[in-house]
Amino acid sequence: MTDPFVIEITRGARVESRHRGAVAVVDAAGRPVFSRGDLEAAIFPRSAVKIFQAIPLVESGAADAYGFGERELSLACASHSGEDGHVALAGDMLARAGLEEGALECGCHWPFDLPVALDLARRGGAPRPLGNNCSGKHAGFLCTAVHLGEATAGYVEAGHAVQKRVKGVIEALARTRLDADSCGTDGCSIATYAAPLAAFARGFASLASGEGVEPARAEAGRRLMAACMAEPWDMSGTGRACAALMQAAPGRVFAKTGAEGVFCGTVPELGLGFALKVEDGATRASEAGVAATLAAILRDHDPALSERYDALSRKTMRNWEGRETGEIRPTGF
Amino acid sequence: MTDPFVIEITRGARVESRHRGAVAVVDAAGRPVFSRGDLEAAIFPRSAVKIFQAIPLVESGAADAYGFGERELSLACASHSGEDGHVALAGDMLARAGLEEGALECGCHWPFDLPVALDLARRGGAPRPLGNNCSGKHAGFLCTAVHLGEATAGYVEAGHAVQKRVKGVIEALARTRLDADSCGTDGCSIATYAAPLAAFARGFASLASGEGVEPARAEAGRRLMAACMAEPWDMSGTGRACAALMQAAPGRVFAKTGAEGVFCGTVPELGLGFALKVEDGATRASEAGVAATLAAILRDHDPALSERYDALSRKTMRNWEGRETGEIRPTGF
Repeated sequence: MTDPFVIEITRGARVESRHRGAVAVVDAAGRPVFSRGDLEAAIFPRSAVKIFQAIPLVESGAADAYGFGERELSLACASHSGEDGHVALAGDMLARAGLEEGALECGCHWPFDLPVALDLARRGGAPRPLGNNCSGKHAGFLCTAVHLGEATAGYVEAGHAVQKRVKGVIEALARTRLDADSCGTDGCSIATYAAPLAAFARGFASLASGEGVEPARAEAGRRLMAACMAEPWDMSGTGRACAALMQAAPGRVFAKTGAEGVFCGTVPELGLGFALKVEDGATRASEAGVAATLAAILRDHDPALSERYDALSRKTMRNWEGRETGEIRPTGF
Repeated sequence: MTDPFVIEITRGARVESRHRGAVAVVDAAGRPVFSRGDLEAAIFPRSAVKIFQAIPLVESGAADAYGFGERELSLACASHSGEDGHVALAGDMLARAGLEEGALECGCHWPFDLPVALDLARRGGAPRPLGNNCSGKHAGFLCTAVHLGEATAGYVEAGHAVQKRVKGVIEALARTRLDADSCGTDGCSIATYAAPLAAFARGFASLASGEGVEPARAEAGRRLMAACMAEPWDMSGTGRACAALMQAAPGRVFAKTGAEGVFCGTVPELGLGFALKVEDGATRASEAGVAATLAAILRDHDPALSERYDALSRKTMRNWEGRETGEIRPTGF
């Protein structure tokens, strides 16, 4: 266990706030090639493993049966911003399986992104299940259930076949057992299981390399990753970090955020997977930390790309009048 | 230096995220009666010292000249939510000095409280300087300048008489020197100076007890504190933590939040001042931490009140469907 990385928030010449975090970058055999902090600490991966959760949609044949292309597959892995295009596409996915919005059991919330929420309010709109950041994932769950002839009601419960399949995929990819003690309820009501950071990183390395993964699953994972990298907006939204991280190296880096300061992803050409958790759960720090991690692991391999990630890891902070107040800067990488 | 306090965010049976923080509770002589973490670490107090910044408004005679009552004095110490009542009152304060909204140099932002921002958007509104959370403080600055015959333009600059007076008050109360090295720019464009946590706590103890403070200043401080405790909504807004903390013990506790995880305040009947900073800047943790601090220092003095603060320090967290997911709980108090 090494020291954590630290994301500093400065004001004037001083550090005002500090975020500590851990990150594991491993190969498909689970060997760490870069790490900071405690890799064995159990973390809840939250939405950062949505791509694992979407694998049954492809493996089951549902995605093909309903004619899903890259946009739909990307949305099935998304924590989207609830913009009009996301809402429409999630509704279309449900419609292909003969379902309506009422089938969703994810609940609803105002879009997390303030401009999107304000725009919705301005138009007299209100939160709806299709606008939930997880609606694409839930549409994927429902389509899989319908395709396999399963009941759709209660698909969010841990005992439903949909969730059992998802749990099985995560256990197999991360090579870890997820038990009741490590189970929590996620924002969208499905189960989320805590496991070591290194285990999730290994799951992503396996997905990226295909090593030790049965061919159909490896193919499903590759297809989902390719879809997200090709259509990053569907997986995130306007101005979002996941999109910026993937657009910096089109088709070469997959990165997905999760609530409470988590980020997971892969650099397929290096055969590496990564998992990152900021101790205090801050998104501003996980976004800086994941960019700094990518800069570090790409430094020798592709210096120019490494510099692009280094630039993404730093941010000048300004106040309401546009005056510079400080910066976000990663240390310990 | 003792261990920091820790605010845990749980999910299921596990801790998902952790916030570390430091808190100093001292008497007017600067003697710590309760502390966690590093009391000598310099922190930016941000808006938590707005009551210090409002002292010249009263000391100068401007508050009386313009007929300001408790609501106006509370707003002059506020980080308000930008609700209609706040906007109107700030505008009224300016009008009494013959000024208009355009005199404000604080910039503008959408209200931080989502329901208030959404309501504004729904009505076709937009951010305006009077809705800036600091508009009451800035109205106080401007009224003081007009009353003293000073130029109003540039009142946010460190070299302007308004800001020099504010700096002098903070230096005198906190018994510390604020130099250029410790200077940062705040969200509303005025200077904010870093100083040890214990120094700010002592400043609040001095304000609460009047010990070692010249009588006119002590009286100004008492009047501002009384105004905030009498009109907590003007100092904060609907559903805000500052209001809840003060309403739990009407007229007996003063507490004010600052950006990046700061809280300062006093328990006048104990002659104590406090200052708290969460390392990572999280508001959810500073709110839990200040309530836990009040519970700790009131435990022997008033067990029933201590229990009310203990209850305020814990919070059950629920997801979009209302399912319980975990809790916010302070440890190390």
